[in-house]
Amino acid sequence: MTENVSDKPENSNVVWHPTAVSPAERRAMHGHNPCVIWYTGLSGSGKSSIANAVDRLLFDRGCHTYLLDGDNVRHGLNRDLGFDDAARVENIRRISEVSKLMQNAGLIVGTAFISPFIADRALARELIGGHFIEVFIDTPLAECEKRDPKGLYQKARAGEIKHFTGISSPYETPISPEVHIRTTQLSIADAAAQVLSYLEQRQIIASLDLD
Amino acid sequence: MTENVSDKPENSNVVWHPTAVSPAERRAMHGHNPCVIWYTGLSGSGKSSIANAVDRLLFDRGCHTYLLDGDNVRHGLNRDLGFDDAARVENIRRISEVSKLMQNAGLIVGTAFISPFIADRALARELIGGHFIEVFIDTPLAECEKRDPKGLYQKARAGEIKHFTGISSPYETPISPEVHIRTTQLSIADAAAQVLSYLEQRQIIASLDLD
Repeated sequence: MTENVSDKPENSNVVWHPTAVSPAERRAMHGHNPCVIWYTGLSGSGKSSIANAVDRLLFDRGCHTYLLDGDNVRHGLNRDLGFDDAARVENIRRISEVSKLMQNAGLIVGTAFISPFIADRALARELIGGHFIEVFIDTPLAECEKRDPKGLYQKARAGEIKHFTGISSPYETPISPEVHIRTTQLSIADAAAQVLSYLEQRQIIASLDLD
Repeated sequence: MTENVSDKPENSNVVWHPTAVSPAERRAMHGHNPCVIWYTGLSGSGKSSIANAVDRLLFDRGCHTYLLDGDNVRHGLNRDLGFDDAARVENIRRISEVSKLMQNAGLIVGTAFISPFIADRALARELIGGHFIEVFIDTPLAECEKRDPKGLYQKARAGEIKHFTGISSPYETPISPEVHIRTTQLSIADAAAQVLSYLEQRQIIASLDLD
């Protein structure tokens, strides 16, 4: 029998569900709530290391996660953007929109970008909605500059990089982040545990059974 | 004891994994391969209905999926884009990059956009890599125009919408799509089953046990 495309169940020979998969159904399948964990801090503060450690701990608990960072965003989706003010805002806007889509897909999304300006982080919070968790990776500038894992501070001091956060461009400290990690008192593993503890408190993930 | 952030295991009091979660690990957790199912066809051809039906069938089999379409992309990530040639290419580029990220997160991603030009779909295929599955929703223009679910063809004929695919702008038919769905011979459910059958053949998802 020749049929036109139709959503009438009688035209179907398989079980037919007319509705799209809902966020509630994805949540039930995953066994955890989706959220966006927005890491912010200076270059070299440990954002990426801590975000990866959190991602690993969550994955090992069976959570569905993804981490957006400079490596997978700046060279892909945002490769057309420079570093002036307009590009900076557009960079954060797109990362926010992608995070929102991934949250909608049921994932626990991490974003590890310096995101130095309060207004930009407020925009991210507003655009994303849902569970938005700002995690301030609080490492003193002197310590970041001492580490300088990519040699960027040295180049910034030499004037080879302009508008470098902490040197020639401000870092606006978060006023009331959901999680405040003072890295001088913590290992990466302890820092990651602090984030997981917050996710448990907020019942985004289940608490581990201590038995 | 006060410690600086470090990735040395001896600084940690929890089990420590230094590496990021890999695509292979996500695949093992999900029990299927990730891929991007790129639906293309005229406005009103049934792309969105069929894509949603596939998404539902996959979800009900325990697959991890997400569907990108005009509703969640044009009003969010791509809200700054118009409809001229440059914007059209940028629209496809961003959808491709987001699909790539989601594929990297282990998801079976569907994209339901007219995407009328061969060059744009070739760009998507190239950017995304991995398993790229072009699904041509082949519904004759006369049929699409007869349905006209959003009244767009009527507006296009009246000259109220310019560059409307099929009326005042070409639709370039896919030359060798992975899946070719002739909707005049199929119900939505049958069309969705055809896509699932292809995913099974390619071993992206497991075949259903017939017992």
